[in-house]
Amino acid sequence: MKLVTLLTDFGTADGYVGAMKGVLLRNVPDVQIIDISHEIAAFSYRQAAFALLNYAFEYPPNTVHIVVIDPGVGSQRSGLVVETTDHYYIGPDNGVFSFVYLRQAFNAYEIMLSELKSNISSTFHGRDVFAPVAVRILSGEAITNFCQPAQHLSSFYTPYEKLDEKQIRLKVLHIDRFGNLIFNFTRAEWQELGQPENVQVRINHSLLSGIKETFGDVKNQELLLMWDSQDFLQIAQNKGNAAKILCLQEGDCINLKLP
Amino acid sequence: MKLVTLLTDFGTADGYVGAMKGVLLRNVPDVQIIDISHEIAAFSYRQAAFALLNYAFEYPPNTVHIVVIDPGVGSQRSGLVVETTDHYYIGPDNGVFSFVYLRQAFNAYEIMLSELKSNISSTFHGRDVFAPVAVRILSGEAITNFCQPAQHLSSFYTPYEKLDEKQIRLKVLHIDRFGNLIFNFTRAEWQELGQPENVQVRINHSLLSGIKETFGDVKNQELLLMWDSQDFLQIAQNKGNAAKILCLQEGDCINLKLP
Amino acid sequence: MKLVTLLTDFGTADGYVGAMKGVLLRNVPDVQIIDISHEIAAFSYRQAAFALLNYAFEYPPNTVHIVVIDPGVGSQRSGLVVETTDHYYIGPDNGVFSFVYLRQAFNAYEIMLSELKSNISSTFHGRDVFAPVAVRILSGEAITNFCQPAQHLSSFYTPYEKLDEKQIRLKVLHIDRFGNLIFNFTRAEWQELGQPENVQVRINHSLLSGIKETFGDVKNQELLLMWDSQDFLQIAQNKGNAAKILCLQEGDCINLKLP
Repeated sequence: MKLVTLLTDFGTADGYVGAMKGVLLRNVPDVQIIDISHEIAAFSYRQAAFALLNYAFEYPPNTVHIVVIDPGVGSQRSGLVVETTDHYYIGPDNGVFSFVYLRQAFNAYEIMLSELKSNISSTFHGRDVFAPVAVRILSGEAITNFCQPAQHLSSFYTPYEKLDEKQIRLKVLHIDRFGNLIFNFTRAEWQELGQPENVQVRINHSLLSGIKETFGDVKNQELLLMWDSQDFLQIAQNKGNAAKILCLQEGDCINLKLP
Repeated sequence: MKLVTLLTDFGTADGYVGAMKGVLLRNVPDVQIIDISHEIAAFSYRQAAFALLNYAFEYPPNTVHIVVIDPGVGSQRSGLVVETTDHYYIGPDNGVFSFVYLRQAFNAYEIMLSELKSNISSTFHGRDVFAPVAVRILSGEAITNFCQPAQHLSSFYTPYEKLDEKQIRLKVLHIDRFGNLIFNFTRAEWQELGQPENVQVRINHSLLSGIKETFGDVKNQELLLMWDSQDFLQIAQNKGNAAKILCLQEGDCINLKLP
Repeated sequence: MKLVTLLTDFGTADGYVGAMKGVLLRNVPDVQIIDISHEIAAFSYRQAAFALLNYAFEYPPNTVHIVVIDPGVGSQRSGLVVETTDHYYIGPDNGVFSFVYLRQAFNAYEIMLSELKSNISSTFHGRDVFAPVAVRILSGEAITNFCQPAQHLSSFYTPYEKLDEKQIRLKVLHIDRFGNLIFNFTRAEWQELGQPENVQVRINHSLLSGIKETFGDVKNQELLLMWDSQDFLQIAQNKGNAAKILCLQEGDCINLKLP
């Protein structure tokens, strides 16, 4: 089975995703192409990284995951092939694969454009670089024929910081489309700390105490700490938008007080 | 041929639909997955039921139709497998299959969660229940291995009521995205009544007379009775939104006067 | 390989695209269906024609491209099969294939509805005409069994006009979703003219000089001439909407002064 998944921020109406599919089908007649989404918010490699975490590991061995959220196309950012035990990941080096690096053993390669045939447009590496690289991998070619070991890997994930025995410092990894603030602190890390029950966060004039199980544990409009679907800690507002209320942005930090 | 169609209200950008596809492909390598839509309005099992009516019966024998519009996930609502002569339907018991019950002979089963392997999240039965059930059906397993006969089936369809010789009572089954009001009365039922030409509906200050063939039969902004694409009676407003004008909601009733 | 691509303005939520896919799969079990988009702006055969240009020629030989943007369904407009060396195109005669005619050798046929089986709805030729025609082509049937040579082909493309030695007249072919104005003049035609460097366009109070390589070559909000992704000349506004600023519409003309 030759399986390729596609995740982009292209939308579909311009036919660009259609062009990528054509390149794959023309060169690998028995490929099966699975649309994940083409509706990632423009340039949001963070949204793409979280989406990838939700689906990538469900796929059968040898699946090729192509991810083209590529604000830096045309700049010096490199294109990557990341190989894990089970899968291949192809896309630009901008953080889209942050959680692959975090959760899987991997080898990372940088695509050498000089080893690819034909004209490469400066704006459409999906069609001219990433789809052709998928073709070569699906055809069984050695990655090192067109890649060299990656010298640098971008990631927007950083571990949380321990400030002292009573306090840790968390960073906003992502604000999802509901305005939930997702932090670099997982349920597993909380368990390692002994599952402290009375954790507290103070932001602006709000004090959040304890980690709730569901939105319904607080009143409408109230803020809460809870685990997201991938067990990252998030601050949410029941029937509201936590990011707007708290004026926090991606990359901002908060302190979590341990009891 | 192992064919699965997918209809959800998940959107695509979070990767949840991608996860369901991964479960199917990992377990049934030769499955073919057909996207119907992931843009059903959130929680609108009525919109999904009407969409299903438009496509389901076109598919080849043994197609498995998965429908995950699931406002009740995590509650006590049951999960269903509905088997007709030609197809299988998998999804929550909330009315999404109302028109399957109406138009097809069927056997309905309730999924026994205790017979499914592994952890089942309380929020994502698409990945953890409905896709795995599709896998077992596609693998040829007997439905009764993981299902019991359904004790209850939700449907938002009810037949129209005959009030007297001169009047019938119709219910709003659905308001579509154009504001058209769709009623539980079909062209076939109208023919059974002898195709009465001068039917009348009085709502608020409006009097609608006769069933028109197309929007163009009335002036702009005018209300009309006509048949929808599935031959249900609808009240529409030419270049307008009938539901807003008439302040009617799903479940509301009107009286249709026969001549 | 039996490959069909689908481009429509149907959206997905009503299940109409799902119905077309069912017709294809029921009749051609080994067909592979590729979604291009169902999010073309309602009735925009021009947007569809430009999208088609981006993907169609990338596909392997014998691919069948179905395009259903069909404001004239139910009128006398004919349905077409256009055969090129490599591909088949199926859709209504309204200009969606303008660039196929421009860029490929082709034979064009008009579908004879009388040669199709079964009821044909007056509103859904995607399901009742175009999908069944694709089925017959994929099954190897001769096109002339259900088509006759086309007597008329709609195209919204016309070549630019030479006014005199110093001036050519260009027409707005399309305004894309970013407000870029795309003209009937290509980089190849510019090269034929000797690549004149100091071309000028005067519109309203704006004078645009020279053809820039990228948006970044001008200041924010400034207008510029540049080549689009298919090498058509376009007028764009850096971080703005050129069509709104210039009050130009599809079909409008401008004069380009040669140096």
